[in-house]
Amino acid sequence: MKNNQINIPLPDESLRAKIQHKLDNKAKPVGSLGRLESMALQVGMIQNTLTPVLSKPVMLTVAADHGITAEGVSPCPVEITWQQVHNFLSGGGGIGLLSRVYGMELWVVDAGVNYRFAPHPRLIEAKVAMGSENFLHQPAMSQEQCMQAFNNGRDIVRRFAKEGSNVVGFGEMGIGNTTPASALMSIICNLPVDECVGPGAGLNSEGVRHKANVIKAAIERHGVSENIFENMARFGGYEIATIAGGMIEAAVNRMVILVDGFITTAAMLVAKEINPAVLNYAVFAHEGEEQGHRKMLRHMNASAVLQLGLRLGEGTGSAVAYGVLKGAVAVLSEMTSFEEAQVINTSHIRFN
Amino acid sequence: MKNNQINIPLPDESLRAKIQHKLDNKAKPVGSLGRLESMALQVGMIQNTLTPVLSKPVMLTVAADHGITAEGVSPCPVEITWQQVHNFLSGGGGIGLLSRVYGMELWVVDAGVNYRFAPHPRLIEAKVAMGSENFLHQPAMSQEQCMQAFNNGRDIVRRFAKEGSNVVGFGEMGIGNTTPASALMSIICNLPVDECVGPGAGLNSEGVRHKANVIKAAIERHGVSENIFENMARFGGYEIATIAGGMIEAAVNRMVILVDGFITTAAMLVAKEINPAVLNYAVFAHEGEEQGHRKMLRHMNASAVLQLGLRLGEGTGSAVAYGVLKGAVAVLSEMTSFEEAQVINTSHIRFN
Repeated sequence: MKNNQINIPLPDESLRAKIQHKLDNKAKPVGSLGRLESMALQVGMIQNTLTPVLSKPVMLTVAADHGITAEGVSPCPVEITWQQVHNFLSGGGGIGLLSRVYGMELWVVDAGVNYRFAPHPRLIEAKVAMGSENFLHQPAMSQEQCMQAFNNGRDIVRRFAKEGSNVVGFGEMGIGNTTPASALMSIICNLPVDECVGPGAGLNSEGVRHKANVIKAAIERHGVSENIFENMARFGGYEIATIAGGMIEAAVNRMVILVDGFITTAAMLVAKEINPAVLNYAVFAHEGEEQGHRKMLRHMNASAVLQLGLRLGEGTGSAVAYGVLKGAVAVLSEMTSFEEAQVINTSHIRFN
Repeated sequence: MKNNQINIPLPDESLRAKIQHKLDNKAKPVGSLGRLESMALQVGMIQNTLTPVLSKPVMLTVAADHGITAEGVSPCPVEITWQQVHNFLSGGGGIGLLSRVYGMELWVVDAGVNYRFAPHPRLIEAKVAMGSENFLHQPAMSQEQCMQAFNNGRDIVRRFAKEGSNVVGFGEMGIGNTTPASALMSIICNLPVDECVGPGAGLNSEGVRHKANVIKAAIERHGVSENIFENMARFGGYEIATIAGGMIEAAVNRMVILVDGFITTAAMLVAKEINPAVLNYAVFAHEGEEQGHRKMLRHMNASAVLQLGLRLGEGTGSAVAYGVLKGAVAVLSEMTSFEEAQVINTSHIRFN
């Protein structure tokens, strides 16, 4: 598949000034709701309307295992991946809790967990393999497997779009998945591996150095391709490929995409390599503690909504940011104008 | 009235380690929910429990007019104060909207607006005067008026505490009120006036200089007292005094206090001069765009929950932060532990 083959609608730029005019005539000093106003503008542009609404928000927490864990890149036992899937499905864990608190419908996607799950009404079966291969020695996935995971993500999101969802948050669960995310980041952002690694769930500095060395050796072994799908197959993981596909399909369907932490942001890096227009649909939920997360955001000229020192993933930051997004959208769609409020119009007074 | 006469309960420090232990045993890497965990810890300490809940949250938006507006310190017509009170009461404006979106019950308090309001079920009548005096020429309030406003705030909050509210957000509406807030900040933080002023609702740099000069002349004229109530009477305003009283009473009743923008934070500065134990109960909602706001936060060793570039006031930042607080409290009270989740316990792995 070549880049840019997937068509993503571009925003109608003629609408921007109209939305801004509407925001400027709300009964408040111009611009005084700061980031809430810029988020509102973005959602208006995404939905191509002066009165955006958020409908049937879904959280897709995509899980997979990683062969690279054989190299000791995570301090956590790999069984935690499938155990957390069970936990999330019962409404537990960070994302089980926070998706409920903020009113997002949680679905857990098995993209490649090393465990056979019984069917569950909230589990989406999209398993391509029982985990990726150890990419220190061989590609993480075959090209076919990678495309399968990517297309699974598209299929899943297309289904929710058809059911009327216009907001999708992405989260992930996969012990070891900061390692493929850092590898892809290093390649896409063209940054040294040492600037792309961090402690993940709790590595010490020696562990971080080891993780960096594993990635460097893998890149040395497989080399870097011009093709993003090739790179994803060599160094990625099933949840990253599935999320990247889901993001692309969300943009195709003009959905708001909530991007969570380090792993999910790496999936957005992949998606924007496929078609940079996806970025118009992305709301970056939070700036995490992992150093690489900040650098990825900078690479995409993105600034995150929240700075809460989160480093859990799962979609937790997206769920909290969805809470903020509700307020932002309401400002554009529901807040009274100077005229409606019968308040003297001060929109000629510009803040500088 | 002397400082420290008002007794505020101190947290039971023996509970801190128990709450931390409970947070560390949630099914996630230790500390990975960042600020949500520290907010949860604070609310647990405030409520003296391992299972905090947020009950009947109220937003008190306190309005008043300011004689100092005669000196041209605001670009906005003073009629906007009473017009916005009407607007808020109809559910309009930033705080009418955002208190509704985030589920806080909004009450508008007339602490000293230059307008006679008809009774309204959401309006709390606590008017001490038809606005403060022009403090360039005379004290903003008499000592009696200042104490009346302060005690009104205490009475209002006590009533909500008795009705079962354990969270109170404070906001304000008062054209010209950045000027008294800056004056009090300069005195309490012992900072030059020039570091305490900003554009407010939209002054240009010349307007900001003029505002600073007005404040300097007023401080020159009245001098600075050792007594915080004296200073509040000389340079404050009715909403600031009422909010400061409300904050003190909220702490007396072990309520969570949501502190909004520049003006509300100045009221917290006043409150902590009266009894610094009030700070244990304060959640600083956001870091605003007004330079002085950041410096006030630093003065109190506070870091704000949100950085959204807000500069509206009214309580809008507090309403959005209340949305985040709901998630934080749920983490402590509702999130599954490793044991409940049947996930391998990794709480021995410490992030560094």
